[in-house]
Amino acid sequence: MIKRHFTEVKEEPSGLAGIKGCTVRWLISKDQGAQRYAMRLFTLQPDGIIPLHQHEDTEHEIFIVEGQGVLDNGREQIPVRAGDAIFVPAGEDHSFVNHTRQPMRFICVIPL
Amino acid sequence: MIKRHFTEVKEEPSGLAGIKGCTVRWLISKDQGAQRYAMRLFTLQPDGIIPLHQHEDTEHEIFIVEGQGVLDNGREQIPVRAGDAIFVPAGEDHSFVNHTRQPMRFICVIPL
Repeated sequence: MIKRHFTEVKEEPSGLAGIKGCTVRWLISKDQGAQRYAMRLFTLQPDGIIPLHQHEDTEHEIFIVEGQGVLDNGREQIPVRAGDAIFVPAGEDHSFVNHTRQPMRFICVIPL
Repeated sequence: MIKRHFTEVKEEPSGLAGIKGCTVRWLISKDQGAQRYAMRLFTLQPDGIIPLHQHEDTEHEIFIVEGQGVLDNGREQIPVRAGDAIFVPAGEDHSFVNHTRQPMRFICVIPL
């Protein structure tokens, strides 16, 4: 069993092209013994942008932990806030922006 | 894509023997299109107990969203609080208690 506070986990830039004001912490992944799926924590700063993109074979299970923002699925803009759970099936467009003055943090679980 | 706030999701008693003051919401599972893993939100009320147990083939990826409590792995008692990520490998004992006056909520992701 491994326990660690998210603030103890290395904060890394996200590699997605065009991304702005966003970092990722790999909370639970292969290094912790996970084999089937990984839990990451994203922080999207005020005015941060995760541009519209998709992943062919990778679904997302997301939970907004803190703050709020707007999710765009390529067709509509959907306000999201702490306590929201979001399922993004593989292949579906998605983007996030944070136009507030507080960071937005969210858990995002992906297959390994 | 599906978005729903956790308060919109049916709150159910957990079926674990000996459990007290604990409910579960299945935020993202097969009904939402998930195929590989499910995201649940547990609420453990003040004086709530999830007794020591294990799952032979099921690992847990946990993130404490709110509150605090104590995790017992059968050997030691480990304080946990909002922002902690916990990996419980398949077959490892685990229990939670909440001795505070506030609910503890945590995300727990399991394989489907």
